[in-house]
Amino acid sequence: MKNFPHSITRLVDAFAALPGIGEKTAMRLVFHLIRSPKSSSKELGEAALGLRENLKFCEKCKNITTSNLCGICEEDGRDESRICVVEEALDVLAFEKAGVWKGVYHVLHGVLNPLDGVGPESLTISDLVKRVANGGMEEIILAMNPSVEGEATAMYLTKQLQSVATDKIKITRIARGLPTGSELSYADEVTLNAAMQGRRDF
Amino acid sequence: MKNFPHSITRLVDAFAALPGIGEKTAMRLVFHLIRSPKSSSKELGEAALGLRENLKFCEKCKNITTSNLCGICEEDGRDESRICVVEEALDVLAFEKAGVWKGVYHVLHGVLNPLDGVGPESLTISDLVKRVANGGMEEIILAMNPSVEGEATAMYLTKQLQSVATDKIKITRIARGLPTGSELSYADEVTLNAAMQGRRDF
Repeated sequence: MKNFPHSITRLVDAFAALPGIGEKTAMRLVFHLIRSPKSSSKELGEAALGLRENLKFCEKCKNITTSNLCGICEEDGRDESRICVVEEALDVLAFEKAGVWKGVYHVLHGVLNPLDGVGPESLTISDLVKRVANGGMEEIILAMNPSVEGEATAMYLTKQLQSVATDKIKITRIARGLPTGSELSYADEVTLNAAMQGRRDF
Repeated sequence: MKNFPHSITRLVDAFAALPGIGEKTAMRLVFHLIRSPKSSSKELGEAALGLRENLKFCEKCKNITTSNLCGICEEDGRDESRICVVEEALDVLAFEKAGVWKGVYHVLHGVLNPLDGVGPESLTISDLVKRVANGGMEEIILAMNPSVEGEATAMYLTKQLQSVATDKIKITRIARGLPTGSELSYADEVTLNAAMQGRRDF
């Protein structure tokens, strides 16, 4: 990178630090910005600097918000006795876009991953346990990703929640099976097994 | 994206405006920055804001630099009678990394592309023509990409340069053929044809 101005290599490094962006892609992005109107890099810079301004976690569900409560927890008509537990704020967005859930959420901000040093204290598990311990809950849906870590987190959560739940509480896990539009012959063995195990009356 | 703070959607939009980054990838990048230490998004923001500061085009070769001349044009021992013409400043970097060129460069900042409204006046063609018209040149290597636009630009440049060259000037085009390490059976027809046409005594 000799002969290249520092302002270029600095932004290349910043891009390359992002997940999924290597040095070559980072270079392409930077040279795209150099060729674009100056307003493009200015907008990106200001947006990045402003990102963390006023960002908070919702007091109830730990979703990302700018006020004390997130838009969903503040929304009227949400069934607060049913909590859908997800890994990331992005997952809340996916459910909301699909419009398939009228209860509330709880965002863990990760999954248990001992190898990466992510234990229960790094997640918002204790907040969820408190919400459930307060009573009034009917159902907790564990909507972590269908991965090894997701399953392990679901099992850990189940134990924790069952030990504090005062009412008769239903703990469920979102279904695993073939995604709509997929082809059976391309599905992997674990998915096929899950689809078989989860079969229902037709 | 309702229910999401403006600072998030703003950075998502800024990322999604970059080539090769869609909305989903942009979201992942933004949420990565939210989970990372605050210094990550700060560094990215400041780097993007500082990108265009003091950036200029080299007076001779139009490479990107912070002074009047780029590091290569200022370097001692460069053969200034041989110019390697490239599309982008990135291409200069590729040649310099490979260490295969001891002459100088000329950066066009694009290729002719009438459908996208890129005519000769959008590129640094007139500057190159002036450099050659000043005399003292022995060889111009046209190192544009082996694409339709690259070939068209090479043909256009050849005509322009031949009409102004005062000395007997050699205009060459970098070789097309099979890249090292590739497999002949996977090569496309145009590449195979170019490799055949460009065959040399062994």
